[in-house]
Amino acid sequence: MEDKTIEQEKAATIASLRSLLQPHSIAVVGASRRQATIGNRLFHHLLQQEFKGVVYPVNPNTEAVASVKTAPTVLDISGGVDLAIVIIPADEVNQVIEQCGQKGVGSVVIISAGFGEIGAEGKKKQDVILETCRRYGMRLVGPNCMGVINANPEVSMNATFSSVFPRFGNVALGTQSGALGLAILEYARDLNIGLSTFVSIGNRADVSSNDLLQYWVEDPATDVILLYLESFGNPRKFARIARSITLKKPIVVVKSGRTPAGSRAATSHTGALATAEVASEALFAQTGMIRVDTLEELFDVANMLSHQPIPSGRRVAVLTNGGGPGILTADACAERGLELPSLSDKTLSGLKGFLSSRASLANPVDMTAEATADEYDRALRLLAQDDNIDIVIVIFIPPIVTQA
Amino acid sequence: MEDKTIEQEKAATIASLRSLLQPHSIAVVGASRRQATIGNRLFHHLLQQEFKGVVYPVNPNTEAVASVKTAPTVLDISGGVDLAIVIIPADEVNQVIEQCGQKGVGSVVIISAGFGEIGAEGKKKQDVILETCRRYGMRLVGPNCMGVINANPEVSMNATFSSVFPRFGNVALGTQSGALGLAILEYARDLNIGLSTFVSIGNRADVSSNDLLQYWVEDPATDVILLYLESFGNPRKFARIARSITLKKPIVVVKSGRTPAGSRAATSHTGALATAEVASEALFAQTGMIRVDTLEELFDVANMLSHQPIPSGRRVAVLTNGGGPGILTADACAERGLELPSLSDKTLSGLKGFLSSRASLANPVDMTAEATADEYDRALRLLAQDDNIDIVIVIFIPPIVTQA
Repeated sequence: MEDKTIEQEKAATIASLRSLLQPHSIAVVGASRRQATIGNRLFHHLLQQEFKGVVYPVNPNTEAVASVKTAPTVLDISGGVDLAIVIIPADEVNQVIEQCGQKGVGSVVIISAGFGEIGAEGKKKQDVILETCRRYGMRLVGPNCMGVINANPEVSMNATFSSVFPRFGNVALGTQSGALGLAILEYARDLNIGLSTFVSIGNRADVSSNDLLQYWVEDPATDVILLYLESFGNPRKFARIARSITLKKPIVVVKSGRTPAGSRAATSHTGALATAEVASEALFAQTGMIRVDTLEELFDVANMLSHQPIPSGRRVAVLTNGGGPGILTADACAERGLELPSLSDKTLSGLKGFLSSRASLANPVDMTAEATADEYDRALRLLAQDDNIDIVIVIFIPPIVTQA
Repeated sequence: MEDKTIEQEKAATIASLRSLLQPHSIAVVGASRRQATIGNRLFHHLLQQEFKGVVYPVNPNTEAVASVKTAPTVLDISGGVDLAIVIIPADEVNQVIEQCGQKGVGSVVIISAGFGEIGAEGKKKQDVILETCRRYGMRLVGPNCMGVINANPEVSMNATFSSVFPRFGNVALGTQSGALGLAILEYARDLNIGLSTFVSIGNRADVSSNDLLQYWVEDPATDVILLYLESFGNPRKFARIARSITLKKPIVVVKSGRTPAGSRAATSHTGALATAEVASEALFAQTGMIRVDTLEELFDVANMLSHQPIPSGRRVAVLTNGGGPGILTADACAERGLELPSLSDKTLSGLKGFLSSRASLANPVDMTAEATADEYDRALRLLAQDDNIDIVIVIFIPPIVTQA
């Protein structure tokens, strides 16, 4: 593909996702008065979180949901609709999508299940609604997903059936699993990790992690991208997109389906073909994505990255008060392709000015166990200004003397 | 006035107040996005409490309030409107009331101040809006009030600027003072007293305590009526209505403005002419209303009455385990016009069957300090069945022996 075509496609993708992630008006088709239904909870979540635009409940069988007047169909809504959330039986979905198209809706999120994930017949239905969406130029998230969140206070959209709304922060999150999405939101809240946007992509009939990556790399609210993936839709395209993004923003991935058993489970779960583990590994290696194995790791890494810009290079200085930990760190860096260059003359003469004569000024800089807080402070400042150095790793071992 | 005319008037009053207290649809004119404004709070309270009908925010300057699409004016609302709550500057109110009339709104509640309570000029504005309401046959609560509540779960309306929503119960409450209304709702909640409906009548331009009494006496959800009054609008009518009601449901009143200073304060407060204390006293005596002096007493009495039907007559039996308290009670009853008749032969022979020979079987029945719980139980059952008795007062003094 030519570069120009790629750029155009990217711009179109980003524009098309604005109606999904920054809508001004949302129709909830299947909003319900009945307690404990998804159509009830999701509509309440939009109100409770005080979505900054307009929400319209759509339900032909009841006059109001949560005290808000319903429209019988999307076509009966007087204002424009950017985003439609659809929570009705699978067999009725296509008719509603057709109406959304006629109405000029920008994106639809189909929460309803009973599509690709249940087999060939469901897949047929899914293809029909996808065709309808394409015909009208609508983007489709789902089906079989838990919805979308934009935590930016200027949007404040909780269009999911999770009552957990994360605090606003710089981490974007995409997940193929809805159930895991619930756990992920709770986990993020418990760790106080701030999210920018959250998308549960479900069966990925249309909007995929590829699309989201293109949106997030240009999203000023997002600095770190997290993905929970069960499969890659278009691995070649994914690799191309991911490679260009990891130079700007880190991507951290939990890829499940690593074992054949897990892979089969993933396939039946969201109806997407799970990717062979060996291919996944190659993909991660090529693209610079950070792969983790558990949700715990996902958020550990995210937490660190959200407070830490990507280093401008691979040259590391290690500052320590113990020789052993310094050597372990040097080894670990070398194994991962990082360098430990010599320090500049300016740094060396600066360090000599205040460090003990027993200190080692090679890299790692070992200040020995006598190092004071003030010496750490001065040494760190010198290393951070060294032109030979992109990254500083600081190690502090509590010295025996302070414990006695 | 002929009885038939009175009955017709009463039926018309009750019907007219249904749109106020059992509305299916509410327009909030002046609903606002701005935090900490009444127009914001009141609209949120309606949503939070999940009013069972439809609410429409009306505001020409913003697209949505609390994520709900606004209508620029009441006339732009597509459905019907039973009740309009008006929270806009005094000078703009009449135009909105005019639109409410054209729309066919049943009742309006004007929260806005700046009317009768501020003097002659405000009174003029108040008269104009009242005339508009009359012309269209709309009932008007306020102006200068805090709104209305219906705690029945089938209505669940908190159209006030108090965030306190009482639990549903059988006590109806009307207040002339909005600020006191806030305190009253908090007080009722703290005492866990259940309310049926709550109306803050403010300046009482149209709907008065007279109207509310007529509504509440026929309201199946209400058993006890509480009023906080600063003045009687039409004392003659009030006396007539109250007298007929107290035979069916108790009315408990806190009447403020008893002193000349309090009376002047009450006049300037809601713009209603405070009533001379001596006239008030006569009125209470004539009508059988229960007058109390403080909010504490109001709720003490309400609490008792809400668990206690009105006795069918004035004949009291006193059951005690101590002679002194029995005599004090007998005196207190006599002073208040209650009778302590002799017990029936059946009761007497029943009591003789198990009470100590030292017990006194006159009325009061003094079982002496040895009385057991079982004897209390058996004696109370006999007294309750006695045809000579309408009311039983039970006194229990912890006997010395149980304390030793």
